[in-house]
Amino acid sequence: MALNMADEVKLFGFAFSPYVCRVKMALNMKGVKFQNIEEDPTNKSSQLLNYMNPVHKKVPVLVHNGNPIWESLVIVEYIDHVWKQVPFFPQDPYQKAVARFWAKFIDEKVFGKNGGDQQVVAEAYENMQILEKELGVKGKKFFGGDNMNMVDISAGFIAYWLPLLEEATQIKILTKDKFPKIMKWADDFVSCQVVKEILPSRRLVLAYYKKRFCKG
Amino acid sequence: MALNMADEVKLFGFAFSPYVCRVKMALNMKGVKFQNIEEDPTNKSSQLLNYMNPVHKKVPVLVHNGNPIWESLVIVEYIDHVWKQVPFFPQDPYQKAVARFWAKFIDEKVFGKNGGDQQVVAEAYENMQILEKELGVKGKKFFGGDNMNMVDISAGFIAYWLPLLEEATQIKILTKDKFPKIMKWADDFVSCQVVKEILPSRRLVLAYYKKRFCKG
Repeated sequence: MALNMADEVKLFGFAFSPYVCRVKMALNMKGVKFQNIEEDPTNKSSQLLNYMNPVHKKVPVLVHNGNPIWESLVIVEYIDHVWKQVPFFPQDPYQKAVARFWAKFIDEKVFGKNGGDQQVVAEAYENMQILEKELGVKGKKFFGGDNMNMVDISAGFIAYWLPLLEEATQIKILTKDKFPKIMKWADDFVSCQVVKEILPSRRLVLAYYKKRFCKG
Repeated sequence: MALNMADEVKLFGFAFSPYVCRVKMALNMKGVKFQNIEEDPTNKSSQLLNYMNPVHKKVPVLVHNGNPIWESLVIVEYIDHVWKQVPFFPQDPYQKAVARFWAKFIDEKVFGKNGGDQQVVAEAYENMQILEKELGVKGKKFFGGDNMNMVDISAGFIAYWLPLLEEATQIKILTKDKFPKIMKWADDFVSCQVVKEILPSRRLVLAYYKKRFCKG
């Protein structure tokens, strides 16, 4: 696949979405310039509808030289495959499989698809304890070691969006006494230049969450 | 990573599990010899417990030269990464991302984690229609084209286990008039030598499903 200055990279997204920010973060880590197209999730543009998948009618959608790619982690792996600098996975096949396992675990088991109901919160809590332990085992700054990798990209929600969701819903999960390693990781994560640059405003995300989850 | 005759490959599994069979199929497609260790899911061996993940207490677990790998699709990707012959993905990064999307879709949206309740069946039906259409678009024998790929490995459940589950539960989804392309694909799939060799007996799977899903 020939890559050159003529590469056209468009990202259809929604600024507050942690899924969309995974892709922005991945592109930023690779130093790939892209056109950011902000969508209204309740009223998608005809251009986006045109690129949408019959199955998965969600942002982010990355369109690279006219080819649409769907699902945030699939997109991040694609970015890693096309742009080789700053690899998101360890080279060793075993370490790569372990990273893929954890990225998937965070995506499916910690993220929680259904907002703040009790069972989701209890499960997220238990799974966060597993992550806390995993960070302890490594004893490194990031899940990826000294530098961020696929697992950190997958986990970004925990660092930035979860505290805002907690503030909006008044359900507290992340505390310094229960999750000291995750809290330290979260600080380091949001302090990274490549992350800071793409994060949406705290104030606006908080307002969005309050509107969405606090109907009362 | 040096690979040689001394490679030790152990698969901890349960013969009737379609997840375990994904891994067996992948190893068989690559021509990798492995030691199959049959486990009782309700009474796991201490050797397996030793290799288990704190998070994911399920088979299959592949142990390669002492290193355990978890989650069937993560294991299949690992196998593809270590043994290069008969690749499970297209070379082209875009086609690879598309294959990864469909493998994930089938795993998460068609497989259905909760047996035969009505909502699961309705959702599976709808998602199978999407797959039927996808096979039509390709107009090829397999999801992978002329040869099986990652998507076929992920979809194996539909070809072999689903008809047996239908027989056990008397809930019929797959019919020749509604799903002609999937039915044709299923025939071709189970006729492949590398698949046939690793499939469990129909009679035993059926008996297992009857016991599990038909308490009445």
